Order: sequence, then structure tokens, then C-alpha cells
Amino acid sequence: MNRIITIGREFGSGGRELGRRLADELRCAYYDQEIVAEIAKRTELAEEYVQRIIEHKPVVSFPIHIGKSFQVLPDPLREQEQSVYRQQCAILTELADQSDCVIVGRCADYLLRDRSPFRFFVYAEMESKLARCRAKGAEHEKLSDRELIRSIRSVDAHRAEYYGFYTDQKWGDRRNYDLCVNTTRLDLKKAARGLAALCGE
Amino acid sequence: MNRIITIGREFGSGGRELGRRLADELRCAYYDQEIVAEIAKRTELAEEYVQRIIEHKPVVSFPIHIGKSFQVLPDPLREQEQSVYRQQCAILTELADQSDCVIVGRCADYLLRDRSPFRFFVYAEMESKLARCRAKGAEHEKLSDRELIRSIRSVDAHRAEYYGFYTDQKWGDRRNYDLCVNTTRLDLKKAARGLAALCGE
Repeated sequence: MNRIITIGREFGSGGRELGRRLADELRCAYYDQEIVAEIAKRTELAEEYVQRIIEHKPVVSFPIHIGKSFQVLPDPLREQEQSVYRQQCAILTELADQSDCVIVGRCADYLLRDRSPFRFFVYAEMESKLARCRAKGAEHEKLSDRELIRSIRSVDAHRAEYYGFYTDQKWGDRRNYDLCVNTTRLDLKKAARGLAALCGE
Repeated sequence: MNRIITIGREFGSGGRELGRRLADELRCAYYDQEIVAEIAKRTELAEEYVQRIIEHKPVVSFPIHIGKSFQVLPDPLREQEQSVYRQQCAILTELADQSDCVIVGRCADYLLRDRSPFRFFVYAEMESKLARCRAKGAEHEKLSDRELIRSIRSVDAHRAEYYGFYTDQKWGDRRNYDLCVNTTRLDLKKAARGLAALCGE
């Protein structure tokens, strides 16, 4: 069975960079945005739209009461979400079958649980996340610190809701991971080398 | 400033062994039971008694209402606890001043916070903790699995209470640590090597 490493991460914690560096150290494949692109291709939805679906809490359809009978009305949005989720499962399984890999986000720790992935969760203190977002530049330039903090919290809240909805587990709860890494005081290059030694063959 | 590494750990998670191996890898001092022995010496209490105080929630003295006046009665048990805690603080500071070191337990992550220690929390799934306790042998031999699980939970509950009382932080909450390590599927020798590379100079 291939060696699968999954990375859950708080927004701005450097989880992506750590994941990419880890994949480099382990000389294995790295998947992140590629998964969204592939879902978009298969569902014929725009990549941005798929991204939005993935990072938001799914819509729940309730039966609607008409007269004395209950009836579930077709809900196109809900159907799209389900389709995105189904494709996500299929793609993750295909990738995990192909080779050793590092997968960022997408509930991969849960969806690939029968393959015993090594599950990281990457987090950081708010000050550090703020600094990392600022360093990334353009995207957040116009936001005040307060607005940026609100935006960081909002992304994480949506990730937590999405993860909770599909896995019935608490996002970021250390019991669901093999290693939780606080990047606040870490040099990511050095950390990746150490973590590769720890979870590699 | 010396490099200080602190290790909080669930009972049976292998935190001590990981700490010792980490100190070996980093060629630095390792303190665990030595601290209890030193407290016992300084407070003139038995080592077992100090250990019991350290692993239990402290007694809180409430003012006692006599007639119309409030009065705090002297409480020898509470005074002993305070004395043990004061000695613990003093000893940890002395050790941290001496050289680089790994310190297991004793709220060291919090007590030495002005020296920015690298803070580990070591945990594991119950099945793994059970197996580790069984492998250690004699001490738990007579307990059924159910009794042993109850005993593991009880030790951890006391650690959490003690830590919470003195630090006002939640024991095992990843936000209070730099790295949380689930040892369930790890080889401790290999893990120590990787973690040393990660947090060493």
C-alpha cells in the first residue's frame, strides 16, 4: 500500500508550504489545488465555484410540508454539493492508488482512513497567521488587521463546518491526528526535514 | 539562554521514553523523577507523598464562617501543597539555568514560559496505552483491562486537574503546545530522531 500523508491546516498556518516541503523531502507527489481543478473538470463546474463549495458548510435539505404529505423537493445546490463530494472521494482514492503522496485538506485523513494515512494538523497563533498572510501580499493588502483576523477566522470556521459535516469528527481535535504542529516558532524547512524523518520509511 | 524542552504526557503514552530518547539525541540533561526526589529532600516529605500531591488536584481552602466573622483556618495539607509547588518552581528554574534539558511533566511548559521552552504533548489511543502499560509488567498485572483503563483515565484526570489549577490552561489543548505527538503508530526511537532534528539547534 502506498504511503499517504494528509495535512489539515488552519488558514495562514503555513500548512501548504510545510506539505510541499514534506513531499520534496520524501520525494513523493503533492496534491492540493490540483484536486479542485480535477473536480471542476469532472463536474463541469467552474474551479472557483468548486472551491467555494468545498470551503463552506453544505446545505441540508429538509422535507417540505405540503398539505398533509411530506415531500423532498429537488435541490440543485444540494445536488451539486453531493456531486462535488462524490468526485472528491473518487479522485482521492485514485491518487492514493497511484503512488506515495502528500494531500492537503479535502477531508483526506477521513476519506482515506482505510489506508491508514499519517495525519498532520498544522496550526499557529493568530499573530503568526496574520504575519504569514501579510507576507503573501496582494490578496489581503487592503484589509486592516482586524478585518484580516475576521477573514482568517471565517475561513477556518467554514473548514471546521465542512469537515464536521462529512466526517462527524471535530476539525483540529488532536485525537483525530498523528501529529499536530504549531508553526508559530518553527522554521518550516527544518521542520519538514524532521517530520520526514519521523513519518518516512 | 539554554534550550528547554518540556513534555506533557498522557499516562501510558510513552512520553517518558520519548523524552529520554530525545535528550539522548540532543545530548542534553533529562529530568523526571529526579525533580520529585529533590522536592522531597527540600520539603522533608516522603517521595511517594510528594508524588501523590503532584498528581492530585490541590485542596482549596474556603473561609469558614464563625458567628458573624469570616476566618481562614490554617490548613496543614494546603500548606504542604503550596510548599511542594514553591519548591517545584524553584527547582525547575535552577535546572533550566544549569544547561539545555528535557523536563517531563510538573507544569514545566507553563512555569518556564518566560524562557520559551519547546513544548511537547504526548498522547495515544487507549488501546495503545493499555498495551504499553501491560508491557511494562508487574505493576498492573493484577488489573483487568477494564480496571486498567479506569486507572489510566484517573491518572490523566488528576494530571489535568493539577495542571488546570496551577496554570489556568487546559491540559492537552494543542494551543498550549508546539507539537502534539500521537505515539499510537510511531516507533519512538525513530520519532525521537525526527523530533530532535525539528526542535534542535
